[in-house]
Amino acid sequence: LSELPPVFEKYKPHIEREIQSLISGRDLIKISKNGSTIYEMMSYHLGWLDCNGAIARSNSGKYLRATLTLLTSESVSGNFSRALPAAAAIELIHNFSLVHDDIQDDDELRRHKPTVWKIWGKPQAINVGSAMKTLANLAAYNLYNKKVCAENLIMILKILDESCLKMIEGQYLDIDFEKRPEITIKDYLHMIKRKTAALIECSVQIGALIDLNPVKVKHFRDFGRNLGLAFQIKDDILGIWGNDKKTGKPSGNDIKKKKKSFPVVCALSTMNDSAKKEFFNIYNKKTIDDIDVQKILNILNGSNSEKLSQKKTEQYYNLALSDLKKLPVNKDKIKDYEIILSFLVNRDF
Amino acid sequence: LSELPPVFEKYKPHIEREIQSLISGRDLIKISKNGSTIYEMMSYHLGWLDCNGAIARSNSGKYLRATLTLLTSESVSGNFSRALPAAAAIELIHNFSLVHDDIQDDDELRRHKPTVWKIWGKPQAINVGSAMKTLANLAAYNLYNKKVCAENLIMILKILDESCLKMIEGQYLDIDFEKRPEITIKDYLHMIKRKTAALIECSVQIGALIDLNPVKVKHFRDFGRNLGLAFQIKDDILGIWGNDKKTGKPSGNDIKKKKKSFPVVCALSTMNDSAKKEFFNIYNKKTIDDIDVQKILNILNGSNSEKLSQKKTEQYYNLALSDLKKLPVNKDKIKDYEIILSFLVNRDF
Repeated sequence: LSELPPVFEKYKPHIEREIQSLISGRDLIKISKNGSTIYEMMSYHLGWLDCNGAIARSNSGKYLRATLTLLTSESVSGNFSRALPAAAAIELIHNFSLVHDDIQDDDELRRHKPTVWKIWGKPQAINVGSAMKTLANLAAYNLYNKKVCAENLIMILKILDESCLKMIEGQYLDIDFEKRPEITIKDYLHMIKRKTAALIECSVQIGALIDLNPVKVKHFRDFGRNLGLAFQIKDDILGIWGNDKKTGKPSGNDIKKKKKSFPVVCALSTMNDSAKKEFFNIYNKKTIDDIDVQKILNILNGSNSEKLSQKKTEQYYNLALSDLKKLPVNKDKIKDYEIILSFLVNRDF
Repeated sequence: LSELPPVFEKYKPHIEREIQSLISGRDLIKISKNGSTIYEMMSYHLGWLDCNGAIARSNSGKYLRATLTLLTSESVSGNFSRALPAAAAIELIHNFSLVHDDIQDDDELRRHKPTVWKIWGKPQAINVGSAMKTLANLAAYNLYNKKVCAENLIMILKILDESCLKMIEGQYLDIDFEKRPEITIKDYLHMIKRKTAALIECSVQIGALIDLNPVKVKHFRDFGRNLGLAFQIKDDILGIWGNDKKTGKPSGNDIKKKKKSFPVVCALSTMNDSAKKEFFNIYNKKTIDDIDVQKILNILNGSNSEKLSQKKTEQYYNLALSDLKKLPVNKDKIKDYEIILSFLVNRDF
């Protein structure tokens, strides 16, 4: 699957308008005529400006998380507009993590374009990410103007921050794993539950909480978490075997970064000691060149890890599917969730 | 002045206990026996653990912002304990900015110790800072348990995030100024109002807001802002002429970083074109060595900029003093504010 399903397109202009209004409301004075403000850097990352500050239109990402928030709110209440501030918040948190992630991983490309740090340097890119995280909170306060009561708003804000902190913990573990010799599948799942699933679970949860009582959101959370886990393992597969023209990132990228992604952890779990030794002789090198990448690919292909990773993705896909059956929403909305879920595990970008 | 006045010591154990309880409440599992968790890195930065995770006691900083929050809350209500979550939040936001600032400026020392990035690398130090910012928000939600009403809590949270975003904008400007040829005193003040004064103003403001009506906090805010401006210009003076044994940072540090700090901006404003040319011949070099630092010091000393900077500090000191007269609090508390103010502009560290 190389194209976003229509359900994404439906919410996209609304999500963009919400975030754009937040950014344009900031009054940071531009001191010189040259150079970009921190908000222009943000808009570049989000695909709305080019690196000179001129209006442009490039890939903005899928808005998966915001889409889940809006679809859920619409499923529960019949209308998604009250959830827009929450959707903007969650998407800004996600993009904060991408901007910092690119710095941490030294990634020079994101969505087929140079990353923020590659253009403006790492010090300013750190500021861009942190500003996005803070703007995310300011976005969420606008729920108050949408007549979400103060108690509910505090609960939603707290869940956003709890999930964001889990995401950062996951990012810490992911980086930490790079230099640890053996990571088990259990360790790996512990990490991606934080790094990826926490925020996706949150996006479904807060969409539901705008109108539902907290005790009624359990199945929404379960669905979000399982979808998040399926999504990440599929992402790991694309990070190794993906087509770089479609993903926007160099192929074999995750191997070069020595990531302990699912296919790697999975292959390691089946290797004997001498195979492991051979593997770490390469993976422990300071830098991994294209020949090394090919050697690792051969090892992974020999261990059947692509198929096993695909199987693990399907396992979480099926869990998410059965969670869907328990959601207290209309059948046509269940169909939309299914389309999203199915797209995520079958996409090639 | 080389020692903290007793008013700082009074609140310090309470501030530390509040932050420590937040950190110890996190359940991030340690995957390996070696290596530090993100929370151990935080505790190292805050002076409570050494870099191996053993209990230690080193300089934790002044806790200026949290002290102002607690003193203000106590001045207004007779008791500071309800303000503790807000004080913890503001101190975590400040420390988030320090951890990222050290990465951005390549600073290897902070409070006489290696910086977080110097020990654990920049990728993890970015996570440590971002986690602190997020933990700050989680800290503030505890105001709800202290019977601060939901509407007031939302107002306080929003002010915290607004101030934090201003601080990041200021940090963006500060870095941007390094490569711009001419920065006016107006530009400089625009920058430090954000980088430093916004969060200090916020610390006084939220201390007052816990018990006072928003319309009654204007003079508290004015005091905080003017104290913040005096504080930053004094900091700039120490960044050039400070004693490195006392400040914990190498002397001439701000010159090496090509900072457009107040003494520099002030000297530039009085230079003729040929003097400016001489100045920028040095300041535009890729790296500035000790001889260059000495040359810049000679230029600054020749332009009387230390005295002018001291005068500017006193100007804001006097404004803050006159704001104090308008605060609706007891005389003995005014005395505490005066002690803090006077310490900040006379300190040598």
